[in-house]
This record gives sequence, C-alpha cells and structure tokens, in this order.
Amino acid sequence: MMNGNLSSDGGVTDMRGRHRDGLDTPCLVLDLDRLDRNLALMRDLARGAGKMLRPHAKTHKCSRLAARQWATGGCVGICAAKLAEAEVLLEAGIPEVLITSPVVAAARVARLVALAARFPGLRVVVDARENALALASAARQAGITLEVLVDVDPEMGRTGVSFAAAADFAQWVAVQDGLRLRGLQCYAGHLQHIENAEERASRSRALLGRAAEVFRRLRASGLPIDLLTGAGTGTAEADLGIPDLSDLQVGSYCVMDAEYLKLGGADGRRFDRFQPALTLLSTVISANHADFVTIDAGLKQLYFTPDAPPLPIGRPGTWRYEWFGDEHGRLFPPPGGARPALGERVELILPHCDPTINLHDLLWVTQGDTVVDAWEIDLRGLGQ
Amino acid sequence: MMNGNLSSDGGVTDMRGRHRDGLDTPCLVLDLDRLDRNLALMRDLARGAGKMLRPHAKTHKCSRLAARQWATGGCVGICAAKLAEAEVLLEAGIPEVLITSPVVAAARVARLVALAARFPGLRVVVDARENALALASAARQAGITLEVLVDVDPEMGRTGVSFAAAADFAQWVAVQDGLRLRGLQCYAGHLQHIENAEERASRSRALLGRAAEVFRRLRASGLPIDLLTGAGTGTAEADLGIPDLSDLQVGSYCVMDAEYLKLGGADGRRFDRFQPALTLLSTVISANHADFVTIDAGLKQLYFTPDAPPLPIGRPGTWRYEWFGDEHGRLFPPPGGARPALGERVELILPHCDPTINLHDLLWVTQGDTVVDAWEIDLRGLGQ
Repeated sequence: MMNGNLSSDGGVTDMRGRHRDGLDTPCLVLDLDRLDRNLALMRDLARGAGKMLRPHAKTHKCSRLAARQWATGGCVGICAAKLAEAEVLLEAGIPEVLITSPVVAAARVARLVALAARFPGLRVVVDARENALALASAARQAGITLEVLVDVDPEMGRTGVSFAAAADFAQWVAVQDGLRLRGLQCYAGHLQHIENAEERASRSRALLGRAAEVFRRLRASGLPIDLLTGAGTGTAEADLGIPDLSDLQVGSYCVMDAEYLKLGGADGRRFDRFQPALTLLSTVISANHADFVTIDAGLKQLYFTPDAPPLPIGRPGTWRYEWFGDEHGRLFPPPGGARPALGERVELILPHCDPTINLHDLLWVTQGDTVVDAWEIDLRGLGQ
Repeated sequence: MMNGNLSSDGGVTDMRGRHRDGLDTPCLVLDLDRLDRNLALMRDLARGAGKMLRPHAKTHKCSRLAARQWATGGCVGICAAKLAEAEVLLEAGIPEVLITSPVVAAARVARLVALAARFPGLRVVVDARENALALASAARQAGITLEVLVDVDPEMGRTGVSFAAAADFAQWVAVQDGLRLRGLQCYAGHLQHIENAEERASRSRALLGRAAEVFRRLRASGLPIDLLTGAGTGTAEADLGIPDLSDLQVGSYCVMDAEYLKLGGADGRRFDRFQPALTLLSTVISANHADFVTIDAGLKQLYFTPDAPPLPIGRPGTWRYEWFGDEHGRLFPPPGGARPALGERVELILPHCDPTINLHDLLWVTQGDTVVDAWEIDLRGLGQ
C-alpha cells in the first residue's frame, strides 16, 4: 500500500534536512529531543527505585520508537496489546515482548506458538484454564515451553482472574506441561487518568499491593516466579514504591497527550514531569467567520475524547479546538485574539495519544524545526 | 507497508472461497449482495426523480467500492474530502472526482493543479477570493482551466460562503481567468442525523431551497452553470424533491451504520430502506464474569460515538456493547440471556461508519458465509 504522506511529499528522503513547514498537513511531528528526555527521565525514575521498564508499544505503534526505548536502557521488555503487534516487534529485533491480553481461539493460539518457536523472548498473559490448556497443548506439540504470566484483574473487569482466585490459578498454571509460569501481571488501566494525584496514587498502591501479596504468597510457597508487572504513566511514580513490582508497563510517558496533561501531579503541580513530544500540524482551510477558523484535522486525524480536546500551542492566550466532523476541526482564538489566516499552520497537542497515533502512517521526526527522519507507524491497524 | 490482515491470514488469495470463520478478528466484513442492493436502490431513487449521484468516498475510503458505485450506474462523479483521496481515486480510473473541501496553501494548490493537468475530470470547491486567485494563477501557469464549484455554507459554519454572499462571489469566480465555474455545492452535514424524519426533511428542503434560489438567480443572469450538488444519506429522499438539485453526495447509504439505523424514517418506520452491509467480526477473549464478556475490539477498531454504540447482531434479545479501552469492548447479553463462550465470535454493526472504516486496512468481501474477495481500503489515513 502506498503511503499518502510519502507520495504527497515526494518521499521521505526528500524531506530529510528540510524545514518542517514543508510537510503536508495534517501530519504528526515527533520532537526527538523531547522524546529522548522523556525516555531518559522514566528510565532514571525506575532505576532510582530498583525497577525495570516494560514500555507499552500500543501507545506509539512504532517499532523504531520501541527500539529507541530499548536503546535508552533500563528495559526488560516491550509490551504489545495484540499478537499481530508482537509479530512486528519481534521481527524488528526487539528481544523480549509480552502480549498483555489473552490470546484466544485455535488459529491464533497456533500462530502464537509458531512465533514463540522462532522467538523465545515472547511471553503472553493467561486468565482462563481453557485457554491455558490450549496454549500448553500447542506448545507441547511444537516442542517448546511457552512462558506465561497470570493476568490478575485489578477489580476493573476487563481481563484477568480475581485477586481471590489468582493464587490457585497460578499454582495450576505452574504445573501445566508446555508452560512456564514467570509471574503475574496486574495493570490498572482505569486508574491512570484519575485527576487527583493523591487519590490516583493511593488507589493504585492498594490494588497493586493486593497483587503483590499474591505474588509473595506464591513465592513463599516455592514457585520460582520472578515477574510482577503492571503500572502505567499515570500511576508510575506511586507504583515505584511497591517493593515486589519488577517492572512498569508505561506507555504514554514517551509522547504525552492532553488527557495526561490535565491531571494533577505531585505537590499540587500539574502532571507535567513528562513533556508533550508529539504534535499534529494542521492548516486553516476556511476562514469566513469572525470568531473561529476551520482546519484540516477532524475525527479521522484526532481521536475524539470528549473530556480532553487537543491543545493548540505556540499561540498567546487560551485557544479552543472543537471537532467539526470527520475531516475538520474548528479553532477558536481567545476573546479579542486574532484568528489565524487562511492557509496558516497550527500545531496541536494530541487528545488521547494511543488511538490518535493509530490514525496515521508516519511520525515525522524533528530536531528544532528540521525534519531529521520519518518513522513508519508499522503496528498501526494491527488489532488482531 | 505490510498489511497485518494479509500477513496474519496467510494472504488474501488463500482466503478466497473459504468460510469467513477463517478470518482473523477483529476485521471488517462486507456483504456484497447487500452492498449491491443498497447501490441499486439509491440509483433507482435518484433516477426516479431525474437526479444523478455523486457518492462520497470519504465513507468507505476504497477505490474498488467507488468503482462499483460507478459501475452500478447513475453516477456523475465521486466525491473526495481531501486532495490525497482524489489522487488515489483518479489514478484508480474514476473519471470524475469532486474535492468537497477547499484546497488551501501554496504547496497543495500546486499539487492540485498538477493533478488536474493529468486528469481533466478533477473539480474542487472554493469559498474564498484569496484561494480562488491562487488556484486561477496556478491553473494559468499550467496552461489549464480548472473546474470549480462555489461552496455555499448551509448555516453550519464549517466551510463555504454565506447565502447572502454566494451570488456575488460566484459572479466574481466566474470571470477569473484560469477557472471555469460549474455550479454550487451546498452540503448540510449537520442535518443528516436529525432523528425526526419530518424535521430532517423540512430543514433540508429549506436550506437547499435557499441554495437553489441562488443557483436559479445565477442561471437567470446568464451564467452557464449546470451543477447544484449536495444532500447526504439522511436527507436524500427529501432532497430529491428540489428541482434544481443536479446530484446527491450520498455516502453512508452503501454500507450503513448504527447512527443511521437509529433515525426515524418515512411513515413512522425506522430509517431502514438501506440495510447494513458492513459488520465487524470480533472474538471473546476473556469471560470471567457472569454478566458480560470482553471482546477484542475497542477504540482502535470501532470509532467512539457516545450516542450510537455498535449493534451486536445474530443473537436473540437486546445485546449491548460498551467500549472498554483502546483494545477491548464489553458485551452484555440481555437479562437472563447466555453469554457467548470464550473464543466465540460476535458480529457487530458499525457505530459511525466513516471513521470506523478508516481504522482498518481491508474490507473482506463475502457472499453468504464465503469470502469472495478483499478490497484494500486504499484511501485510509489520507487526510491531506
């Protein structure tokens, strides 16, 4: 498939070394220096607490960015939400990939085991006996031992076994021939965007604390497990205080978004230790009204999240973006502020970064105003 | 770029002639017979009123589907929302393409005119003098005459000139050297989803009626314009009654979605003349709760529209889908109904079809339960 950005811009190679104003819009622009600062900051926070990172590639859907996270250091693996993502990451050379959702149904189990036979660094979570038996049987047939983690549900209900059932289930998984139990996953996705920092931290410590209790009990019983993985960008700093947690599945910290930036952070400050590294460039395509302009980025370029619209940057005062259909957005200057002119460019911090990135094909990598590279969003659309 | 569906299913060719249960999920399935019935029905409705169709490719983002609309007959052109979409449609052999949003900014104007020089069937709307002057100048330099339509704003504010300014602006455009004015566009996107059929119809007739008035005045003044284009799936039947309307920019009618299906239709019936032809297949990947299961389709596979969640089909009673994060959804059986089992497949009618299709790479084309083809969603992601 031809990539629209490539053909429309005359190819990636032509853009390298040029000013980013030469990029056709709407397009995603990744500030490399800000990205690197975010990656190093999370590495150092984890290191300071004796933890490792297992960054989640569902956020950026880009194996080049995953490789940069790995190269920054402090990583024990990369997470994938789906099998199809894991395939691309492993092929791209990431040594260890954890699939954080159960891989269910016969054809998919067969593909998973075939992949694990080629890449021993593949791990997957499991939350049901029926699924564990299917994985074990396929692994035995392939002559491999599949490394698994038990997915523990942090009372969210999406996937996982309950706290009450987790220990028994893990003991049962541990003795299945064909599987090797490495530990537990407990990812509290529903806590990551709680606005109040103290509430977010205390609820996360309470829930992950219960998973840690199960983990300790299993270790005390003699199970040779070594991984308790969980946490996200919102709760990461609180979760660093949980002694048994081995690694953090942080995702959004690398590029950030409007949803995270509106949260409260430590000491009454905003949640701003990590800085937005990814923005969308857009162009004013209609300007026939006194109080707003229409830009070329709508629902198909900026994922709709009612509570956190994209944030216009680089303009004085408080600008407001409104989705205006599938293809367009509406931009309101602050009262008394001048509108941008027809054809003028505007730059927006993304709403929810994960599904917004998943709408695009390329990350245009910049340093200052110069385009230095283009990274294909090669996991985009891989939902299987 | 490798297509995940292709690699994960062992290639499109391998799937042809096989049962659709062999498709990996989540994936889009297009029922060819239902599609063809929808295409023929809209063609016949338009013909009955002496109108032509100009179906909008922003809905399906697929040049194969556009070609099928064209082949069904009754079409005077295909619409594209953006220049990058028009490029692909024209290259794929569609003879006439109208870009329904203004194409603004110097680099893009240059690309537009270069495309028009190769494909004389390209037309574009214009809503500002500055933009019209840029188009005219670029067209003269390229030695071509660019066909344009004046975009008239149906009091929606997105793009277009006001009703009051439309006639003067059109007269001015008509005398610009390098441009040829073909007519007016008036697309009332904000009316398409009004639930009450009578209100939807009367408001559309009132607004399009005002555009028709401008159109008649311009013709009476001697301007040789022949196109008054507008209407969408929601207002199409009402708009057929407007004598001056030349063609209808219908989009969703070809595949339909949950948003349209919940509207009121004629005679107190639901809006159900057009039948859902496109569904998403999904798989239950976790089933540890009594009252719901978790499936493998979330925000990245089914566009979030708070008012019209996807509709589970083929199951007795009223099932309910809830988005459950970026990668997952939650499916609730009706009270007392049995849950689907782990690994079982579920089929969903799309929420808003346009941005949902834009999340996927392929339409798996089926007849009955058999996969007969795979159409690449080759305009996907082309927002420039």
